[in-house]
Order: sequence, then C-alpha cells, then structure tokens
Amino acid sequence: MIKPLSLFIFNLSKSNIAAQFKFASSALPQFSSEKYGVKRKSFGVIQPTDIDYFKTILSEERVVTDESDVLPFNIDWIKNCRGQSKVVLKPKTTEEVSKILSYCNSKRLAVCPQGGNTGLVGGSVPVFDEIVLNFNLMNNIISLDEISGALVCESGCVLENLDNYVRDHNLIMPLDLGAKGSCHIGGNISTNAGGLRLLRYGNLHGSVLGLEAVKADGTILDCLRTLKKDNTGYHLKHLFIGSEGTLGVVTKVAIHCPALPKAVSLGFFGVKNFENILELYKRAKSSLGEILSAFEMADNESISSTVKNLKLSNPISDYPFYVLVETHGSDEVHDSEKLSRFLSEGMDSGLILDGTVTSEPAKMKNIWNIRESIAGAGLLEGYTFKYDVSIPLRNYYELVELLRKRLRDHTAKVYGYGHVGDGNIHINVIVPEYTKQLYSILEPYIFEEVAKFRGSISAEHGVGFRKPQFIHYSKDESALQLMRDMKKSMDPNGILNPYKVLPDVPNI
Amino acid sequence: MIKPLSLFIFNLSKSNIAAQFKFASSALPQFSSEKYGVKRKSFGVIQPTDIDYFKTILSEERVVTDESDVLPFNIDWIKNCRGQSKVVLKPKTTEEVSKILSYCNSKRLAVCPQGGNTGLVGGSVPVFDEIVLNFNLMNNIISLDEISGALVCESGCVLENLDNYVRDHNLIMPLDLGAKGSCHIGGNISTNAGGLRLLRYGNLHGSVLGLEAVKADGTILDCLRTLKKDNTGYHLKHLFIGSEGTLGVVTKVAIHCPALPKAVSLGFFGVKNFENILELYKRAKSSLGEILSAFEMADNESISSTVKNLKLSNPISDYPFYVLVETHGSDEVHDSEKLSRFLSEGMDSGLILDGTVTSEPAKMKNIWNIRESIAGAGLLEGYTFKYDVSIPLRNYYELVELLRKRLRDHTAKVYGYGHVGDGNIHINVIVPEYTKQLYSILEPYIFEEVAKFRGSISAEHGVGFRKPQFIHYSKDESALQLMRDMKKSMDPNGILNPYKVLPDVPNI
Repeated sequence: MIKPLSLFIFNLSKSNIAAQFKFASSALPQFSSEKYGVKRKSFGVIQPTDIDYFKTILSEERVVTDESDVLPFNIDWIKNCRGQSKVVLKPKTTEEVSKILSYCNSKRLAVCPQGGNTGLVGGSVPVFDEIVLNFNLMNNIISLDEISGALVCESGCVLENLDNYVRDHNLIMPLDLGAKGSCHIGGNISTNAGGLRLLRYGNLHGSVLGLEAVKADGTILDCLRTLKKDNTGYHLKHLFIGSEGTLGVVTKVAIHCPALPKAVSLGFFGVKNFENILELYKRAKSSLGEILSAFEMADNESISSTVKNLKLSNPISDYPFYVLVETHGSDEVHDSEKLSRFLSEGMDSGLILDGTVTSEPAKMKNIWNIRESIAGAGLLEGYTFKYDVSIPLRNYYELVELLRKRLRDHTAKVYGYGHVGDGNIHINVIVPEYTKQLYSILEPYIFEEVAKFRGSISAEHGVGFRKPQFIHYSKDESALQLMRDMKKSMDPNGILNPYKVLPDVPNI
Repeated sequence: MIKPLSLFIFNLSKSNIAAQFKFASSALPQFSSEKYGVKRKSFGVIQPTDIDYFKTILSEERVVTDESDVLPFNIDWIKNCRGQSKVVLKPKTTEEVSKILSYCNSKRLAVCPQGGNTGLVGGSVPVFDEIVLNFNLMNNIISLDEISGALVCESGCVLENLDNYVRDHNLIMPLDLGAKGSCHIGGNISTNAGGLRLLRYGNLHGSVLGLEAVKADGTILDCLRTLKKDNTGYHLKHLFIGSEGTLGVVTKVAIHCPALPKAVSLGFFGVKNFENILELYKRAKSSLGEILSAFEMADNESISSTVKNLKLSNPISDYPFYVLVETHGSDEVHDSEKLSRFLSEGMDSGLILDGTVTSEPAKMKNIWNIRESIAGAGLLEGYTFKYDVSIPLRNYYELVELLRKRLRDHTAKVYGYGHVGDGNIHINVIVPEYTKQLYSILEPYIFEEVAKFRGSISAEHGVGFRKPQFIHYSKDESALQLMRDMKKSMDPNGILNPYKVLPDVPNI
C-alpha cells in the first residue's frame, strides 16, 4: 500500500525531529524496497575486505557496522522509508570522501550521501544496502568575510549553527527553514532547499558563491570561490544544487550572507477573496518593495480549524482569507510607517477588511505561530493528505477550489495556504481516515492539474525516492533525457544515491 | 601580434556601438584565424545544396549569402575579431532553429549563435566559416505576469526594449548594462551578463525562472516555466546560463522582473584610503541595507584624469579615493534620510572626508557620467590595457598597487575602479603607446596574481574566442575536464560555437 507522505517537517521544531528517533523495535517501518516494490540493481555487495579497507582510510570508530548503531541512518525521520545498509562511513575530510568514492566506484558499491536526514521524500536514506556516507563530522566553519558576507564552511555544518555564527557578525544565512536545527548546509544545497526567506533573499542558485564536490569516481572538483562575478567557463556549481547527491557529493560550501535586518515588522490582514490577495501582493511589492520579506496567505478553512483545534487566539475576526506580511529592514520607524500606510491604503480601498500591524516580538510570534501551526492542525481531525506544489499566481488558488468540488460527496476539509510570494501553495486534504478510494480520487488527479497549470509537483521538497514516478508531470521527455545523459556522463556506474530522482536510469 | 582587447563597451551608448559598423573596406580587421594562429577543425564545408535546404526551412530573404550583407555578422563591434562565414540564417521560430541545428549536426556543419553581437571576447562572431545563427527576428514578448513579475519572451529581444516594456507595468529588468540598446536577452543569458544592478537584484542564475533551448542535435528542451520554486530533477536551465552558446542555443526566456523603484538617490564621497572604503561598504550594507543598489569606487588617478581629460566638473574636491553609493527604494523621504544619515555618520567617524547626496536627476546624471567616463578617458592619453577581474574584497585594490610598483620604471598610469559590491575591479593601464615589452610585463603577470588571490580573470565578459588560453588561471584541471565532459555529452560533434570557451576540445 502506498501511503502518502506527511510533509509538515518545516513547521516542526528541532526537538520534535529528534523525538522521531526514539525507535521502539515494534514501531520500525517496513523496508522501502518491500513497501514500494523496488528491485535491487546489480551493484557490488559489501565484503569484510571492503570494511577493512575503509578502516585504513578512516579511524575505526568512523566505520559504523553495528546493526543498532546503523539503524537510525537507515530510517527517515517521518518513518516512511527504511533502507538496509550495513555500514555508515563518517569522513572528516574531502580527501577521505574522495578515497571512499574512488574505491566504491571501482567496486561498484552504491553510496547514499546523508546530511541531517531531515528530507521528506526519502532521498537521504538508503533503499537497499547502499553505504551511508554521513557528513556529521565535516562541520567546520572555514572562514567568514564580514565585509562581502562570504561564508565558507564544510557541508556537514548545521544550518542553525551557521545562522547563529553569522548573526554574531551582523549577518544572516540567506535561507531559513523549520528543520534548521538538524539539517546540513550540504543537504540544503543538494536539495535546493527553499524555505521562508526565498521571496526576499532569493534561491540558492543565486546565493551559493562556490562549492567543492567529489564526483562518483573520487575526483575532487574545486569550485570553492567566494566571488560574486566569475564568467570563466561553465558554471559547474549549479550541477550540484538540487541534484540530490546523484551527480556528486558536496563537501564544502561558499555562500553569501545578507546583512542582519535591524527591524522586523508583521502585519496580519483579513481579505474578502483571492483576487484581492493578488492585488494586495502587487501593492506590497510596490509600496513595501525592498523591505518585504514574507507574503503568506491562508484561507478561512485553514485558519479557523487551526485556531479551534489548537486553542489559539486569532488577533482579528473571521474572514474568508488571511494574509501575513513581514518586513525586514534597516530602520524601524521607516518600516513601520511603510507597513501602516500599506494597511491604511489597503483598508481605504477595501482590499483589507481588517488587520493588525506589530513590531512586538511576542505578538509577532503569536501570529507566526498560527500560520506555522496550520500544517499540523489537521492531524487532530483525522488523516491528512499533504501536497506542496508551485502554481503560477493567476491560478494559485484554483486547485483548492477544484479539490473541494471533487470531494463534495465526501467528508473532507481542504486547507489552502502558502507562500504567495514564491507561487508555492500547500494543500492539505483532511479526511476522517485514510482510504485507498480517497487516495485514488486525489492522485494522480492533483499532479495532472498541476501539470495543466505548468506548475511543479514538488516546489521545494525534491524528488528523492518517493517521487521519480511523478516527475514527468513537471518535466517533459527532452528534459528527462538530458538528465539521464548528465547522470551517465558524471556517474557512469550509477553508484551515487541510486533509486532516487530519475526514473528509468539503467543500471550500467 | 596579439593586441589586447579594448573593453569599454559597457560605457558606450547605443549610437557609439552602431557607429562601429560604418566599415571602410580599408579598415577591415584581419581574419581572427590568421591574427591568432588558429587552425580550422574538420567540420563540413557548406555546399550549395545546404543553402537550398536552408531556403526550404526559412524564407529566401532569411538566408543571407551576399558577401557584403554577411560582412557585419563576421566582425565584432570592437573590430578585434573577424570570421569568414558565408551564410547568415535568421530563424523566426524555435522549430526553425531546431531544424537548422538538426541538419547542421547531421552534416557536421559548425554554427555560431549570435545575439546583439555586443560581446567583448569574440564569442559572438565566427572564426572560420561557421554558419551564423542570428536571433534578430526572434524578438516577440510572449507574456508578462504583472503580479509575479514573470516576463516571458523570445531570446532575440533587445534588453532595453524589454526594460521599457516592463517599466510601463511598474517593473524593471533585473539587469542593466551599457550595451542594453543592442544586446539580446538570449545573449545576456548565454554570457551570464552581470552589469550595474547585480549588487541589488542578484545574478541571472537567481533571476532566470526558466528557458527554452535547442541542443546541438536539434532537440528542443522545454524548461520554460515561470515558477520560483521547482525541485523536480536537475536544474537544467543553469547549463545554458554562461556557457556562451556552446552547450545549446537559448530560444525563449522566462525572467523575474523586480518592482520599479519609486525613489532613486545618489551619494558621492571622498575617502582617505581603501581600508576606509571597505569599512564604509560594511556600514552601507548595514544602514542602507535593502535600498543599496550600487556601491562603486574609483581611485584618484581614475577620477582626476577623467575630469581633466574630458573637462568634466567634480562636485567635490581632490581625494585619494571616491565612492559612489546609489539607492533604489519605495519611499523618497525614507531613502534620503537613510543616505543623509549614512553621510553624516561617515563624516563624523572620518571615513568620509567630504561628500554630496542628491536625488536630482541632472546632478545624479553628472556624477554617474564621471564614473562611467573613466573607462574611455585614458584613450585620450595613449594606449590602454584593460582588465576586468574579480578579487576577494580584502585584496581588491592590491593588484593596482602591485602594478604601479611593477611599472615604476615606465611611463604609465594605472586606474583602479569598479563595483566594490560585486568584488569586480576594472584596471586600466595607460601608456603612451602599445609595445610588446609592456604587454609581456602585464600578461600573464596580472592573471597569475589574480589566480593567487583565487580571483576570476574574467568577472563578467566571459571567455569567448579570446580567453580560452587563460581560463586555467581561474579554473583547475578537474573543472576543465568536467566542462569537456559536459561539452562531449551535449554536443558530441562539437558544432556549437567552436574555438570558444574551452581550451583543447578535441574535434569530434
């Protein structure tokens, strides 16, 4: 039985994530290969002599083979996927990674690179007996140029640690996500993580300055420059941003950190319909422009259920739609003037029905808490089907309406909420309990509709192990063929993160 | 004799560029192949039957074979490179491009894609008899989403036309450069053009949302999405950003346009030394933060010579260094307050010795004119060796000082000026006349020094035909080998823009 993923990691705290790893043996998930009916490809099978070799490269304690010690590395935190790896390797240097991959490539031993293991699509855990290449011990900060904002570090650094470090130097990391207490910067880059600040600080293709990666054959690729402008040949770093460890393994990262904002403000508004949200977004871009750091929306179903289920307090009354607008700026007085003017003009024109604007940390936290709680709130009412899609703004909310029509004969709630600024909508379908019938009503219907809108069936969570069979809804055959060509050229033996991302990669 | 390039296009207007094409036959540049000693690779030679075939795909007037009509397409605007093409093809649709490339690939006929032909490194003109694939007729704007800012257009659209178009909808193009009146958006993307707004609006890897490209074998690759977030497989569009038409030909573009700023202000300051410039930059990032749109520097030698040679008026007195700070914002009062405060704090701390702040268009134009005239001002004093490099900020100005030492026994002026915010410095060496001795004193010395700083020997102008032999100063062998692998995988016959970008690409 294919059980859809629960996709709410980005709204859970670090402690919640850690709690997932208190495994009771009775609660162990089924092996992914059995659950999803996948066949092992003809890779080499690890031998005692291989383990001996790894121990010559790494110190003994960094070659983990004890079954119970290996277990947590075999399972993703949402307990959806479980692999059967027998060994975890914990390199400390790029040279060690290079030696490991060179050896594995020569023996055709498959490898699963693993960062913080906070992914949602099974990309960071093995499927069969792939060797887990874990980056926990590659966590050194190498340099920070306070003037240019260029941070250089190893790929196993935890995002939150990096953010704390650069905040001490009046900078922030250009990305932020709920899993920041566990996720690695190398994993962020490999999965092209989006998160909460994308609207303001752009995506990783724009903010990664350089990187070092190791190819499948062990070749170390040095593109670790800290330059903003460098037009000397192909821009190789982008090959490793978002390819989920299938084209190479990121070992070091240079990333641009923007200035720490001196002032943060938040507005929470009631709105009549989605058209008015779009008009408000257009006005926010014009009048808040450079200080706009988030523009989020949620429909009444999302907010009213969340407030009710979790006994929260909504600072404004009941409205068909809600908008959350955040600003990051360098002058509190200026920012608050801009936001208040945006509110009053919005109310005068009728686009905003009611609203509140605040710079008080406690009040801001309360409002963010409502927004961030939506993802989990439905769990209290039954089973939740969760989707994370991108749709062009003019069609952004249509899918929610289509789903409500499609489900009108069923007991179901549909929440629509998300990052309007990024065109990224989260859709939760809450039903009393999971049934195959409901599943078949929703999928592949939702992906078909997203494809009609020329949207993306995975806005930020990636493809991993769970979505290769759906990738064709967002990418046509010419694109898939080029992806296969790249994989073949860069990893001819297919040892890097097999069974992931691409459908139909032949096992050479 | 290798004559270094004159690199001042970005400070010349459209009319200047057009003037370059008033060819007197006596003034025709030497063929590139003879001038630079390059041998033709074993491509097919175009036959009358090939021309006949092209006329079945395109209408007759779009297959240009008359020698004098073909001539302007054979020569770059700085008259440095001259190819020997016999035919120019002017497709109007992607399908036509696809048919042309499919045919050329099957016949092993080499092709030189050409946009506005405003490049500085000979990348957009043929070297031998490559077929020129010109995009002048693919200049339709397809759509503009005013809310998301997503513009979709054909690759032959002129940048300035696009900027004018989106300004009517309260948006701006995310890039701006001196050649905007002639350059094509497809060429901008193929060369990863940087320009004046990069500090604020980021690079093209961040702002290009999607594209359509045709591969060497004629395959049309549809990645023309307008989504900000899409993590479904490899991020293929980046293969075509900055690969200078050697991996595929860009035919359509989707790009994110930021909001038109409501207020623009400019400050021009005198500074004691380069260390103080860096400290000022750090403060500007913090206190101007989100409204900072340019942070430029120029040394005394640059400004005083420019003002003197061109009889301009410097609004402040004589200082060792000058800084130009521009802001783009949504509120004129707020922006001017921020900039004035930045000025007064800078003066109180002694970092700024004198300065002026203005929002008056005429005064801003005057200050920008001084900055933009530096590049050409040296030409009035003799021959100018020009370099465009990226160097990490802590070493940004050192190369200028090193060059002054190295040239102390020669009659030479060294100007150092550039985009501090991007780590991109322009260095002009002005000598009474070009000599081989001076050339050998400067090159490869400058590239060696840039390499020591882990800088880039071509910050924004690309590699093209003129710099493949220097690329190893910025990219190591592992990177070059991966580039060759990509070229081989995507264009196995090597027909796309041969003799460009990569050194030592085997011919087939």
